[in-house]
Amino acid sequence: LESPAEVRAIPLQGLPEIKPGDDLGSSVAAAAASAGFGLGGCVLAISQKVVSKAEGRVADLRTVDPGRAALQLARRTGRDPRLCELILSESREVVRVDEQRGIVIVETRHGFICANAGIDSSNSAGSESVVLLPEDPDASARRIRDGIERESGSRPAVLVSDSFGRAWRLGQSEVAIGCAGIDPLDDWRGLTDSDGRELAATVIAVADQIAGAADLARSKTSRNPAVLVTGVSRFVVEGDGPGCVSQVRPAAEDLFR
Amino acid sequence: LESPAEVRAIPLQGLPEIKPGDDLGSSVAAAAASAGFGLGGCVLAISQKVVSKAEGRVADLRTVDPGRAALQLARRTGRDPRLCELILSESREVVRVDEQRGIVIVETRHGFICANAGIDSSNSAGSESVVLLPEDPDASARRIRDGIERESGSRPAVLVSDSFGRAWRLGQSEVAIGCAGIDPLDDWRGLTDSDGRELAATVIAVADQIAGAADLARSKTSRNPAVLVTGVSRFVVEGDGPGCVSQVRPAAEDLFR
Repeated sequence: LESPAEVRAIPLQGLPEIKPGDDLGSSVAAAAASAGFGLGGCVLAISQKVVSKAEGRVADLRTVDPGRAALQLARRTGRDPRLCELILSESREVVRVDEQRGIVIVETRHGFICANAGIDSSNSAGSESVVLLPEDPDASARRIRDGIERESGSRPAVLVSDSFGRAWRLGQSEVAIGCAGIDPLDDWRGLTDSDGRELAATVIAVADQIAGAADLARSKTSRNPAVLVTGVSRFVVEGDGPGCVSQVRPAAEDLFR
Repeated sequence: LESPAEVRAIPLQGLPEIKPGDDLGSSVAAAAASAGFGLGGCVLAISQKVVSKAEGRVADLRTVDPGRAALQLARRTGRDPRLCELILSESREVVRVDEQRGIVIVETRHGFICANAGIDSSNSAGSESVVLLPEDPDASARRIRDGIERESGSRPAVLVSDSFGRAWRLGQSEVAIGCAGIDPLDDWRGLTDSDGRELAATVIAVADQIAGAADLARSKTSRNPAVLVTGVSRFVVEGDGPGCVSQVRPAAEDLFR
């Protein structure tokens, strides 16, 4: 049951609980070393939430003073006005408001279109802290990659991933919001298949597909933040690559804003 | 390097060239048997294109007579009027037209929002044949599953997959357009993580994530149509399940039509 072409997603066990200021790259390298995993040529997918925590991108709602626009958005959606203030301050533009479901679709400061600016407010009852997206997830991925190399000598590609909803499909799927060491888009334009036919899907969102594959390996309740994906070394490059900002569709091509 | 939680995507070698009328389920079972793969508890992801070919969902443009609406759409987009006729006849509604890029975003008769009604016109130069989506991809998945069981006694889940573009992200990613033996959405609402916190992503598009993982295992030029995904048996059910139609977002919730 071995195949040279197979792709494997393996949750990395043994990461410690992440606190602000932690060096995630060195924690990952240490966990991989004790698990006996080699990191070379693979892709490490790591959940946005722990990256944000390590970077201190956590806000305490008790310190947030909602302005006029936030108060108005809160009235429309039934959401906490302090959360609405954070959503607005993390966004370039509000794209849609779903008053029934209490969802605000925005363009984040990075250019991502997602619900509630990617702010994670699913915390334990009584907690007033929420987790924001990293300031620059591509920079986060580069830092983690550098930390891994410093610690282990290996230079895997790194994805920072989050789950985004989709406009026309129910459910969320994991996508890459930051990356280093991989081009998030694999461009097949001009190539032909084994029968000489032009390939149908010409630009493939490999980073998003790898993020989704990694998510499948997370167990239902433990949600291992770090997953190693092997068998994808053809996508791993020595340099940092263009980052996930390169897969944001330019506004001029956007038919649905 | 073994982990009980790991997910593997393994391309199935040895499938014959598929012709109209072929029983794909029995071809898959035979290829798996000669490769020594057990199919129980795994998910078989198979490309829409071979499913459509087996079902005879191929159209010869020379037999298509474009009507008025198709001629108008062809003028707007610069596409072949006969292809435009097929796009319209496969669709419930035209959602957007990108005149610059020659793309027609439609709601297909199944309810999927995608470009050009999912019609694959990337054929060898001079060929006038195009491949349409299956009439009912969920029924296709059920038939393939039944065929596999008849031949092998195993009853894997089956996904029929295709690559769709995304509104705000460049590149295409593989999604499930038909399924049997798996609920395409894994609903975690009300569950909590190991720290007692409510889980952030509450409905996960597992069928789409499995389709994407499978696509990573396809080699760049051979595009193995069939990929086996293991380590996802928790999603595999005995019955056929609700199919991929169940993950179409209802029009009443659609903010971007």
